[in-house]
Amino acid sequence: MKKHNFGAGPGILPEEALRKSAQAVLDLNGTGLSLLEISHRSKDFDAILQKAKSLVRELLGVPENYSILFLQGGASTQFAMVPYNLLPVDGKAAYIESGVWANKAIKEAKMVGNTEVLATSKDKNFSYIPKNFSIPADAAYLHVTSNNTIYGTQMKSYPDSPIPVVCDMSSDIFSKPVDVSKFDLIYAGAQKNMGPAGVTLVIIKNDICGKVNRTIPTMLNYQTHIEGDSLYNTPPVFPIYVCMATLEWLQSIGGVPAITKINQKKLQCSMLKLIVILCLLEPLQLKTVQK
Amino acid sequence: MKKHNFGAGPGILPEEALRKSAQAVLDLNGTGLSLLEISHRSKDFDAILQKAKSLVRELLGVPENYSILFLQGGASTQFAMVPYNLLPVDGKAAYIESGVWANKAIKEAKMVGNTEVLATSKDKNFSYIPKNFSIPADAAYLHVTSNNTIYGTQMKSYPDSPIPVVCDMSSDIFSKPVDVSKFDLIYAGAQKNMGPAGVTLVIIKNDICGKVNRTIPTMLNYQTHIEGDSLYNTPPVFPIYVCMATLEWLQSIGGVPAITKINQKKLQCSMLKLIVILCLLEPLQLKTVQK
Repeated sequence: MKKHNFGAGPGILPEEALRKSAQAVLDLNGTGLSLLEISHRSKDFDAILQKAKSLVRELLGVPENYSILFLQGGASTQFAMVPYNLLPVDGKAAYIESGVWANKAIKEAKMVGNTEVLATSKDKNFSYIPKNFSIPADAAYLHVTSNNTIYGTQMKSYPDSPIPVVCDMSSDIFSKPVDVSKFDLIYAGAQKNMGPAGVTLVIIKNDICGKVNRTIPTMLNYQTHIEGDSLYNTPPVFPIYVCMATLEWLQSIGGVPAITKINQKKLQCSMLKLIVILCLLEPLQLKTVQK
Repeated sequence: MKKHNFGAGPGILPEEALRKSAQAVLDLNGTGLSLLEISHRSKDFDAILQKAKSLVRELLGVPENYSILFLQGGASTQFAMVPYNLLPVDGKAAYIESGVWANKAIKEAKMVGNTEVLATSKDKNFSYIPKNFSIPADAAYLHVTSNNTIYGTQMKSYPDSPIPVVCDMSSDIFSKPVDVSKFDLIYAGAQKNMGPAGVTLVIIKNDICGKVNRTIPTMLNYQTHIEGDSLYNTPPVFPIYVCMATLEWLQSIGGVPAITKINQKKLQCSMLKLIVILCLLEPLQLKTVQK
């Protein structure tokens, strides 16, 4: 039986994707070269990158006016890239604080410019998703975190927003259908749901860049990576390959709706197990008390 | 026979390191988990990270007062991190322009602050390493590029500098012995000489940080990664593993002096082949002319 890692670390990957990735490390498609040795400018890698992009586009229904980027630096780097690119020098950004990751994103935005926290659930240790807040129409964007692994809270719906919405979907991307057109920017570290550590997926509406009058370091500038098609500098070749292989598997089992069903069944099963365990524990506790 | 990639892309890795890395993708040390599935906070990964660091320290003779970091974003991100961390708001930085990579580093530093180009070989398409420049004692640091792949030029010695020296060694690190104590900061994208794309080695003197009065994005701040021991956020687990396996191989063949000898022999062999080819070509050319 396949072992599972129940820690708060990376997710479990499909065995098919792991086998394919291990083989590519030894010899990529019979080329006689390892995936780790090919140029990122080669036809072989271009095919991998384009396949990974087209799978993201198909599986999440990403509209044509969005770019799909594979970047480095994790969601932690996105915490800085978002305000650097989208928060005008004389403007403000709006954030919802729903957990430790949202908190880190806020901390980073505050280093860049005027950042307003519209709502927080810090008062009850982030045990709920903040609701009943009004979104200021004069803010440059609203930043939300879709899922908060540490606290087990998840946004079931997204607010109707008069301003662009940016969403950190690191821990629930590809786990349920999402209407990408409701967001201007989605980002996700790959290691939770779609691949290994070392690559970050960014889905970005093409026309939201270039509107701030700030100097942006080249590598933190989304425009660099949109124009360079994630190839401005050497990309994380192997992590991108594993994402491609994982998404191929996801496509083969029926895409996002299929994985949603599997997750629901697993959840029901876990709940059932929990109830059984609790029922078994109760008499034991009674006995302990009686002693 | 092992195939070789003669493009300007990544280097060829030892077969032993590739075999070990492929096996770790399937099952890491018999744990029943893939290397891609373990937590970066696990004992298994800590052992990999510490081993990779200790191999860098041993093979390059890195003094104890330097930290060894494995970061994301490539040398291109270092081009920004260096001035962000080391160039004071009211200070200046000094750069030597010896090729396209140095040029990119200069462009990025100019976005951050006052940047002086001390010498350039742009006049002759970077066909030589600039010499005979004086280093201003009031600059915060001197930035040099040790090797310029595109032009085939390499610094044979480093200038005696009254100020800290920062060196981009992306394309010749581990190829020859280097006196690390002469530098305050060395950085290198792994994909040329020590591993796959997706990880960048930084060797940094601990006391050079925290001296600039600038707000630095958390992920661009060396202090973040020194204090977090490259684990502030999820690191590129697989690329770090391949570096460890490659450096283990380098250690097993005798370290940097051994690879220097191999490289010299290969160079001599290549030169000999070139001479033979030229000798063979000459009569052919004569014949063509005679025709």
